[in-house]
Amino acid sequence: MTEKVYDLIVVGGGPAGLTAYLYAKRALLDVCLVEKGPIGGQVLLTDWIENYPGFPEGVSGFDLIELFKKQVEKLGLEVKYDEAIDLTVDGNLKIVHLATGEKLKAYSVILALGAAPKRLGIPGEDALIGKGVSYCAVCDGPFFRDEIVAVVGGGDTALQESLYLTRFVKKVYLIHRRDSFRAIPILQKRVRGNPKIELILNSVVREIHGKEKVEEILVENLQTGESFKLKVSGVFIFIGLRPQTEWLKGKLDLDENGFILTDKNMETSLPGVFACGDCVAKNFRQIVIACGEGAVASLSAEEYIQRLKNA
Amino acid sequence: MTEKVYDLIVVGGGPAGLTAYLYAKRALLDVCLVEKGPIGGQVLLTDWIENYPGFPEGVSGFDLIELFKKQVEKLGLEVKYDEAIDLTVDGNLKIVHLATGEKLKAYSVILALGAAPKRLGIPGEDALIGKGVSYCAVCDGPFFRDEIVAVVGGGDTALQESLYLTRFVKKVYLIHRRDSFRAIPILQKRVRGNPKIELILNSVVREIHGKEKVEEILVENLQTGESFKLKVSGVFIFIGLRPQTEWLKGKLDLDENGFILTDKNMETSLPGVFACGDCVAKNFRQIVIACGEGAVASLSAEEYIQRLKNA
Repeated sequence: MTEKVYDLIVVGGGPAGLTAYLYAKRALLDVCLVEKGPIGGQVLLTDWIENYPGFPEGVSGFDLIELFKKQVEKLGLEVKYDEAIDLTVDGNLKIVHLATGEKLKAYSVILALGAAPKRLGIPGEDALIGKGVSYCAVCDGPFFRDEIVAVVGGGDTALQESLYLTRFVKKVYLIHRRDSFRAIPILQKRVRGNPKIELILNSVVREIHGKEKVEEILVENLQTGESFKLKVSGVFIFIGLRPQTEWLKGKLDLDENGFILTDKNMETSLPGVFACGDCVAKNFRQIVIACGEGAVASLSAEEYIQRLKNA
Repeated sequence: MTEKVYDLIVVGGGPAGLTAYLYAKRALLDVCLVEKGPIGGQVLLTDWIENYPGFPEGVSGFDLIELFKKQVEKLGLEVKYDEAIDLTVDGNLKIVHLATGEKLKAYSVILALGAAPKRLGIPGEDALIGKGVSYCAVCDGPFFRDEIVAVVGGGDTALQESLYLTRFVKKVYLIHRRDSFRAIPILQKRVRGNPKIELILNSVVREIHGKEKVEEILVENLQTGESFKLKVSGVFIFIGLRPQTEWLKGKLDLDENGFILTDKNMETSLPGVFACGDCVAKNFRQIVIACGEGAVASLSAEEYIQRLKNA
């Protein structure tokens, strides 16, 4: 174990983590960012962002993250590209255990772990991931030029990504288990006005068929009980998120879906450990909300660290 | 009274209110903004912003507000330039009473009232406002070129604005009642490294003297009890904020300083009325935090309105 003690470790480099890092550096804290993938998180999978305040023309997820990154790099960005797999407490210190075996010590930890797409859990799904089954229209949409694809889901993401896919594909079947969408009205209006999108409501995908790649799906209408097949070459699944918090079970309080419980200062049930962004138990997940929470978590962590050092 | 019923009225056009408005328009709500001054709020008084994520080179308060405004104008911005003076309930509807006598009806209201600078409450202060007494370095700093000014306060704003004033003035006396600052360390470091700033700690300003304009101040050292005069031509006061919520007393729950109490969905004690930004009771006041709260308040209000309309 290294003997270095950081003031703060931020786990996760999406908007929440980067904002927490920005505020920590401005508070002159000695801080390290842990990120297992590329800096940016889920935002990198987002085609176009119109609701982050300050960008009237909209901004791509990639460009917004570049701006966030530049802003922290100006103050100095130290990153461990590794996966946090355990969190333990040693007196006043927290220890973040990394997959490579390294252990990072700090007075305080901010968890900005984000959340990953949920899977349908149906036959054919896992086997055909990357072969037509996708959780990211921005990543994979361009591979389906002039083809027919299915989108599964009824929230903001499902509708936003259906609209995005119409740039490439000939047709989108938007399949949703209920008879109405949860998505915000402006997206519903745009989807209903798009001739490339056909709505298949009250229906679920039961199976995904294909050998080398997706060829067709088996759909069941929940109202009539009737099943039918659709020829598609892609299935895009947007049915929600699950937080990557399995490694924290028993360490701090999670809700029934694994999201982290915090107080209004973003402190978890484990004192000195804070959380922000999509991994937090809450009603609304948006970039600007994640950023606001990142700022609160960081300012709270700074107060915690000062109290600890002055004690 | 007009018979028009809005979905939502947003009171206050700072970052919190504009973000709430943006999200409301994207939800296709019929929404009206009430603002008694210029769109932008306290941010217009902020010289330079380095901690709003997405602007690595920093951005002026004025420019950031212009961007926010453009973003909502693209979706349609309806503003009543008037002051909200009362809030009443009529069945399912809320009524916002304006100073000019107009009454606006809506299903839901978001209060994004901001907060105004606190006054010292000492002799000479009120009489010399605009004659050397100021609460805004950006507004008034350029009038004090090569002169000597005092800044009162010890938080982020006091230190940030002292640094800003050194662009213009010959010297800043930074006067603070305690022996240490509350401001974040990076600002303390910059202030201590600036040769134009002289710290006067453990001291308070007791009186401001001057006929046509500020000429000198009477300062008391709280440790020694000794009083002394300083020749200054300006006094900039940054001792905190008070929310403009007097008109809401008895309507919804406020804390002892008049800040609005909310739950984590930003709902106040009056159902259907939400609050966000600097007027909310909380520990940290930052632009990005206000924006995050604005998004939460708006999404919560939209759910409330849908429930009401479907009932």
